Amino acid sequence: METIRGDLDDPACPTRQVIDRIGDKWSVLVILHLAEGTRRFTELRRQVRGVTPKVLTRTLRALERDGLVTRQVYAEVPPRVEYTLTGLGAGLIGPLDVIRVWAEENITAIAECRARYDASAVTSSR
Amino acid sequence: METIRGDLDDPACPTRQVIDRIGDKWSVLVILHLAEGTRRFTELRRQVRGVTPKVLTRTLRALERDGLVTRQVYAEVPPRVEYTLTGLGAGLIGPLDVIRVWAEENITAIAECRARYDASAVTSSR
Repeated sequence: METIRGDLDDPACPTRQVIDRIGDKWSVLVILHLAEGTRRFTELRRQVRGVTPKVLTRTLRALERDGLVTRQVYAEVPPRVEYTLTGLGAGLIGPLDVIRVWAEENITAIAECRARYDASAVTSSR
Repeated sequence: METIRGDLDDPACPTRQVIDRIGDKWSVLVILHLAEGTRRFTELRRQVRGVTPKVLTRTLRALERDGLVTRQVYAEVPPRVEYTLTGLGAGLIGPLDVIRVWAEENITAIAECRARYDASAVTSSR
């Protein structure tokens, strides 16, 4: 068994803080979209279904603060705001893609487990 | 650029639901701990710092429902409850480890970006 390195268990540890950030589904979904190219705020809002404008704004700001995304404002009417992955952010595409592929390969098994769990929960509550 | 496969943008899509689940820092931290071996609830609660008992219970229940973790109750006084990764759950160790390694390798760059961002935010608010 491999030992956990760094100090993932310390909320004050920077490595844990990175997990806090990318261990967030909206961050993951936004990064995977930006992996395909620059996106306007309105495009991301439409593409990442289920996200509210408020949460999307907060997610993008946190990603910008972490240096994973750059924000470019064009002085048009209405103002155009575009987001692009930085080199640092692009480095996350590979690792996140490994997670995505795992999810796609194992979703059938997980769905079966969920169905069994829910069925047994119904039985045991009778 | 790689195209997003599956339908990660559809909240009803099973693949998206997997991201919703493992795109959660507590799930990630719990799985990385169980990667080292079976753990009692009380051990996880102590080791995963910052997690409340309520959130840990909810996280473990969701992981159990997904078939990633098994829960074993021993009829002792007080009852002993142990959690172990299933084969399915163990398959996530590799992908999550890639994320962890990335976090450890890039935390310095991210910390520098954060400091710059916060400094410029202070300047621009004057």
